[in-house]
Amino acid sequence: MSVSAFDSALTGDLLADADVRALFSDSRRIADMLRVESGLACAQARLGVIPPGVACRIVDAGTALQPDLAAIGAATARDGVPVPELVRQLRAALDAEAAAYVHYGATSQDIVDTAGVLALRDLCDLVDRRARDLVQRLAALAARHRATLCLARTRTQPAVPTSFGLRALAWARPLSRERARLAALRGEVLCVQFGGAAGNLSALGDRGPAVADALAGELGLAPSVPAWHGERDGLLALTDALARIAGALGKLGQDVAHGCQAEVAELRLSSGGGSSTMPNKANPVAAETLVALARHAAGSLAAAHQAQLHALERDGAAWTLEWLNLPQVAMAAGGGLARARAVLDALTVDTHRMAAAVTGGAGLPMAEAASFALAEHVPRVDAQATVAAACRTASDAGEHLLDVLARQSDAAVDWADLRRAERLLGPAPDLVDRALSQLASDERQGETGKPRTK
Amino acid sequence: MSVSAFDSALTGDLLADADVRALFSDSRRIADMLRVESGLACAQARLGVIPPGVACRIVDAGTALQPDLAAIGAATARDGVPVPELVRQLRAALDAEAAAYVHYGATSQDIVDTAGVLALRDLCDLVDRRARDLVQRLAALAARHRATLCLARTRTQPAVPTSFGLRALAWARPLSRERARLAALRGEVLCVQFGGAAGNLSALGDRGPAVADALAGELGLAPSVPAWHGERDGLLALTDALARIAGALGKLGQDVAHGCQAEVAELRLSSGGGSSTMPNKANPVAAETLVALARHAAGSLAAAHQAQLHALERDGAAWTLEWLNLPQVAMAAGGGLARARAVLDALTVDTHRMAAAVTGGAGLPMAEAASFALAEHVPRVDAQATVAAACRTASDAGEHLLDVLARQSDAAVDWADLRRAERLLGPAPDLVDRALSQLASDERQGETGKPRTK
Amino acid sequence: MSVSAFDSALTGDLLADADVRALFSDSRRIADMLRVESGLACAQARLGVIPPGVACRIVDAGTALQPDLAAIGAATARDGVPVPELVRQLRAALDAEAAAYVHYGATSQDIVDTAGVLALRDLCDLVDRRARDLVQRLAALAARHRATLCLARTRTQPAVPTSFGLRALAWARPLSRERARLAALRGEVLCVQFGGAAGNLSALGDRGPAVADALAGELGLAPSVPAWHGERDGLLALTDALARIAGALGKLGQDVAHGCQAEVAELRLSSGGGSSTMPNKANPVAAETLVALARHAAGSLAAAHQAQLHALERDGAAWTLEWLNLPQVAMAAGGGLARARAVLDALTVDTHRMAAAVTGGAGLPMAEAASFALAEHVPRVDAQATVAAACRTASDAGEHLLDVLARQSDAAVDWADLRRAERLLGPAPDLVDRALSQLASDERQGETGKPRTK
Amino acid sequence: MSVSAFDSALTGDLLADADVRALFSDSRRIADMLRVESGLACAQARLGVIPPGVACRIVDAGTALQPDLAAIGAATARDGVPVPELVRQLRAALDAEAAAYVHYGATSQDIVDTAGVLALRDLCDLVDRRARDLVQRLAALAARHRATLCLARTRTQPAVPTSFGLRALAWARPLSRERARLAALRGEVLCVQFGGAAGNLSALGDRGPAVADALAGELGLAPSVPAWHGERDGLLALTDALARIAGALGKLGQDVAHGCQAEVAELRLSSGGGSSTMPNKANPVAAETLVALARHAAGSLAAAHQAQLHALERDGAAWTLEWLNLPQVAMAAGGGLARARAVLDALTVDTHRMAAAVTGGAGLPMAEAASFALAEHVPRVDAQATVAAACRTASDAGEHLLDVLARQSDAAVDWADLRRAERLLGPAPDLVDRALSQLASDERQGETGKPRTK
Repeated sequence: MSVSAFDSALTGDLLADADVRALFSDSRRIADMLRVESGLACAQARLGVIPPGVACRIVDAGTALQPDLAAIGAATARDGVPVPELVRQLRAALDAEAAAYVHYGATSQDIVDTAGVLALRDLCDLVDRRARDLVQRLAALAARHRATLCLARTRTQPAVPTSFGLRALAWARPLSRERARLAALRGEVLCVQFGGAAGNLSALGDRGPAVADALAGELGLAPSVPAWHGERDGLLALTDALARIAGALGKLGQDVAHGCQAEVAELRLSSGGGSSTMPNKANPVAAETLVALARHAAGSLAAAHQAQLHALERDGAAWTLEWLNLPQVAMAAGGGLARARAVLDALTVDTHRMAAAVTGGAGLPMAEAASFALAEHVPRVDAQATVAAACRTASDAGEHLLDVLARQSDAAVDWADLRRAERLLGPAPDLVDRALSQLASDERQGETGKPRTK
Repeated sequence: MSVSAFDSALTGDLLADADVRALFSDSRRIADMLRVESGLACAQARLGVIPPGVACRIVDAGTALQPDLAAIGAATARDGVPVPELVRQLRAALDAEAAAYVHYGATSQDIVDTAGVLALRDLCDLVDRRARDLVQRLAALAARHRATLCLARTRTQPAVPTSFGLRALAWARPLSRERARLAALRGEVLCVQFGGAAGNLSALGDRGPAVADALAGELGLAPSVPAWHGERDGLLALTDALARIAGALGKLGQDVAHGCQAEVAELRLSSGGGSSTMPNKANPVAAETLVALARHAAGSLAAAHQAQLHALERDGAAWTLEWLNLPQVAMAAGGGLARARAVLDALTVDTHRMAAAVTGGAGLPMAEAASFALAEHVPRVDAQATVAAACRTASDAGEHLLDVLARQSDAAVDWADLRRAERLLGPAPDLVDRALSQLASDERQGETGKPRTK
Repeated sequence: MSVSAFDSALTGDLLADADVRALFSDSRRIADMLRVESGLACAQARLGVIPPGVACRIVDAGTALQPDLAAIGAATARDGVPVPELVRQLRAALDAEAAAYVHYGATSQDIVDTAGVLALRDLCDLVDRRARDLVQRLAALAARHRATLCLARTRTQPAVPTSFGLRALAWARPLSRERARLAALRGEVLCVQFGGAAGNLSALGDRGPAVADALAGELGLAPSVPAWHGERDGLLALTDALARIAGALGKLGQDVAHGCQAEVAELRLSSGGGSSTMPNKANPVAAETLVALARHAAGSLAAAHQAQLHALERDGAAWTLEWLNLPQVAMAAGGGLARARAVLDALTVDTHRMAAAVTGGAGLPMAEAASFALAEHVPRVDAQATVAAACRTASDAGEHLLDVLARQSDAAVDWADLRRAERLLGPAPDLVDRALSQLASDERQGETGKPRTK
Repeated sequence: MSVSAFDSALTGDLLADADVRALFSDSRRIADMLRVESGLACAQARLGVIPPGVACRIVDAGTALQPDLAAIGAATARDGVPVPELVRQLRAALDAEAAAYVHYGATSQDIVDTAGVLALRDLCDLVDRRARDLVQRLAALAARHRATLCLARTRTQPAVPTSFGLRALAWARPLSRERARLAALRGEVLCVQFGGAAGNLSALGDRGPAVADALAGELGLAPSVPAWHGERDGLLALTDALARIAGALGKLGQDVAHGCQAEVAELRLSSGGGSSTMPNKANPVAAETLVALARHAAGSLAAAHQAQLHALERDGAAWTLEWLNLPQVAMAAGGGLARARAVLDALTVDTHRMAAAVTGGAGLPMAEAASFALAEHVPRVDAQATVAAACRTASDAGEHLLDVLARQSDAAVDWADLRRAERLLGPAPDLVDRALSQLASDERQGETGKPRTK
């Protein structure tokens, strides 16, 4: 039973990812909320805010609790948050003294937001790990194809020769940069939410800040005093970064799908999906999925950003709106990374087709190179005019541009030499090397969360 | 296990609705897909396209099939659609002859889209039924409060006296109009999708159109020849209408939440949600939920409309993007209607507080009425200036505007009479009556799907 | 000076359209606001609400007024609406008596919204006219290519033979349906806004409704009593329809850009854009623009729908949000239609390339037809298996599928006959005819605003 | 003439900002494009790629050029970019030799993107300057009101006492964090775009990278080799940050508008907008505008992120989509900051009303404090039950909660002491101090672009 295609047994494996899904599962959410309640009790016991033995009993009860999910669901429909009923169930499992100190000085949002941050921490780890792995594979692909002649296409049209390694780098580099951005961000936004009823720790008097800091310590999160109840920029910055990761994967998917077009046929996915009617089809389903996930994440942002208008000290509507959208973007990024790796694993590059797209036909992609070669012998303006005219001739006559030029021009240009892949590639392989070297350095530095220049 | 808050056991009852969820459940989807395969076999048998006995066997097998969901999920991850594996399972349950005629001349999209339309037909019924019910309740509320004095607020500020009935009408009227729009739309967009491999019924020769029409007849859907594979405007128009319904409910929710503010306190929700720390709180959770659902639906549209750029004869990415977004909007509308009814059922109107907001304090909302009354005795320009000055005096001195005017002006105005609710309400009760009468007529006509003027 | 690329002298001609821009120009907006004020005075004079001679003087002053735009701009920054200052300027041009009756009983929103509806009425006319023209041209294109053999592509991959006419129809049909939807909608949503301070006509007593109706009559708009201040569903439904028109054009643009790919080369745009470096390039700029406009309109909807949460009797924030987004969508649709016509005018169809995509190479798109032909001689299951195997052989050996089958099978199939375009096209030309006939009928009926079934 | 309300003379002063508008004006864009062409010539001359004297002549011609805007607009409609025609005009102003070296080895996207980065650099400066100023003012406001008793509202309802200083901090802190994020980002994303025809510097051979680096140096931008043609993550990350700034301002605006509600009346804007009918109205127009800008920016993101799916080496559609959306978000942020400062300048805080919201009426916001005070004398569970019962009594009887408790309880609680503002504020003033100190430190560090923990 699922409103979301991510949660459906039919489409879940296509669009979602078991590891990411586990982070947003109900059992994980409840476990995290109980972890926050336990951590709070421990922190308060350590500071002498609650009696020493109570914290242990709360932790034990939280660990042992078999929550009544149906009751929590029903109560959430009334309360807007699952915490009051969860706390009631936890208290019911405790003696009166300990029960009175469960959730002591906290409010629902403290529990839900901090539990959410615990899940997001794991999500950041997962995304970083997968992105690192993907960047490495893409870097290897780029290195392998540093000198693979390939036709650059701009505005859907053939442009000039390039190296396929450069195209692969354009898939890798944004992911590497997002890793660094995410590393910087996680240190900043994965912090405890603990503010009590309205963010001012009113119930705990002057011990409030110490409790907040101790809770952060218990959970291994950054501190935040005052709490960030109404300040959603941190979560949103994380959401934005995840959407950009999905977007970078969407470009990869779109480019791969282009390469898999029968008319292009420079790429092939061995994992192509079957058709219910056409046995010979191999659809680039995984690549298409990346496009769908990216566009979905982009749409979800439109709602996620509305939730930044969080009214006063707590806004039920805006907060709920976050719940509906952040996980969608997280799945697009986290699940998308797994999907993109599957795309790469299934990818075959047809280097002959790639080269033929440059050198075959009338050879128009060589026009720029021809023009620059000719300009070493005749004035630049004349060179350009000559080549432009030869382009038209070649195109109309179905002749090769360099043959036309060799025939029409008496300049001492070694026209045959221009056909060499090395000439056609020009500086592209060196650019790949330079970029790979920078990428490797960025990746090492990215681990540390320090920003870097492009 | 849920990525979507709609699908979570924790938050599902808060945000979603069991009846709508059932329409998008996996079991319902599979049942609908099998219904389309069966319907196709019956239609083809009737037309002599497939052997007579085969259709019965296909229908029986489809009815009896216990699909292996896990296998379908896994295959969908590869194929991008659940149909190939579902067809395989159905064929495996049949003899070779019948198996060969399962899914005869069809393609996956025929099955998925037509099954989707079957669910949307039920959704339209459900939405229409709930909207009709809600409009009736809102009309009754407006009728009950046709002459309930209430302060109109414009741009967050007090404006002039109005009737609460008029405000309730502004909640009802858009829903009534959307019912009519939806009725017109459903006749047009709930049509069969049957085009074969690429929409041109290639496999069935000249019998293709007849099969398509017969399938529509079997399923009680409108015909569509050629198929609408790449033309997503119909589904999208439906999605838009559903998002507008969610939006209309969001306004209702937002207005109710305003009325429930302690400082306004003109409305009260008996179903207020509890707090985990503040026992005396009654949060307008249901009203906030309507706001969240409306804003979520609006965001989902941004992705849903991207899916209209459906490439050529079938676009895997765009199609998948629809799956991720249409159900979200449907839930926001369908579930929101149930939620809105719960809001109405729990709503208490404090007519004394409402009236006091107009007549209490300095009485500034009476300025317009005072000005028009005075203008019957002195030149209009002088009347306006006198009242404007009196407003400032009243406001600064904490005196009532009409007392200031009675003291300062010697015009023969019956100032006391202006305080009467009837005077303050002016034409509002009549407007309510006029609008209710039109609403009732529109509702009757709306049933028929005919358009109407505002 | 322009924040929007639509308004820039650099990019305005690329993205926008002079006729649509004129509808949203400041001069047009002011003229429309004055037209509403004049219309109001006339209506009130006719009903005896204001002195007889006053209305003429107001109309004359409005006609003669040279508004001080800078002053209006500055005042709008303070008041949030241009009306108070415009009314002040109009009053300043009048004698005291007439001045007192300018804007009598109206509020700013009455003027702005009704003026907006006047512009939208012209926009609807323009859109309808352009859409009709485009549908006709597309229908002619489809008719011309009813039997033009063309390769259908699904999920980016070659599928089966189809007719190019069918593809062109998929561009035409959504536009034809949107014309009908727009016709139904305009009758309903292009109505007067006249409610006074807070929508209840408080200032005009029991004559309010008559004035509202008379004003509608003056302006040729549908009546609306009570006013629709807080009910934005009508405008939004129009916005949605315009976004769907932009979306339908986006699909056309995307499909055309695909056809113009050098590797596909089935279509050519004679208007291709030049490159600053590559003289031989002809970029399908107009087609790309349609894609950009469609995606832009989709994004604008996410904000436009947020504006439906219009608080209470007037919401300054939500209303302003509409102003920022409705014109963007209107331009995407209205300007897009002009752009699409330019695309069509520049479009050349290479029917030889189209046919070659079906019949050339290994002939795999003929697999389905081969399978059905063979099944007339051998059991259906065997036929499918034989053809599937032959597909693999053909693909691996670079042989033509039908040659493989002719060699491998001894069934009495006339394999050569399968290569005939008529056989390959199958029912497609008839489908085109059937669809064109329905389209023509729909177009005739669409003029009337009556809904129709698909 | 304006499609966008930002560009209208009527609404431009309300929604937009002259300084930000200037950054996106046509004249600025052209100047920046010429600056890039000049910078390129200088860089190439310095490296000996073009003849020495040529660069000076190009710079001079660029400086003197009076571009024919109409011709550029018309050419852009054909070419999709303004560069080819601008280059043509620049060449026409030069001798043949210099003309041949204009735009040498560059492509249109190099010029447009790098020119865009130059404008964004100024935008970042402007945004940073305005945000710093606003943070300082908000910090001063928070400091001034560190101990101003104020009622916290959660989920629209009264919660517990807090300090108004804390609320003001929730407006300041996100802006301070965004300053730091923006500082980190600008170092990374404001880099030169120079890749030639397809991003691989094909025309310049092995001197390409050196030219790219030299051009970056000329313009004071970060280098980027290879170019980032198809990698839009950097610009998008900037756009996201700007949207979050607009969102943070939207929350400020929404909270201020709440405080200005007549029923709340804790805040007042001296700049209130006038009504065309109600002379006594003072609408919080500037605050509403912030809400509209924030929601608009959120919607624009939905389209901006779609543009990340930039196909292959250049995608005309995706690129154009950026042009339509980035400036909208930039204006929402940059203009919004100016608007927010105007809000602050006009803001009056009514500390008496604020305190009365806590202490007046039945005193229910003191329940939590009462409960904790009582728990020092009786078991915690009993204390909670007693206070909960007293809340109901107080609410029903219209009595003050503390009076009820004083009467009903014989515990030795100093009930009168609980009414003291110091008791009610609890740790809030200390939290403000702690937060202000951290904010000041963050602001100092933020200047450096180093990340920081919350």
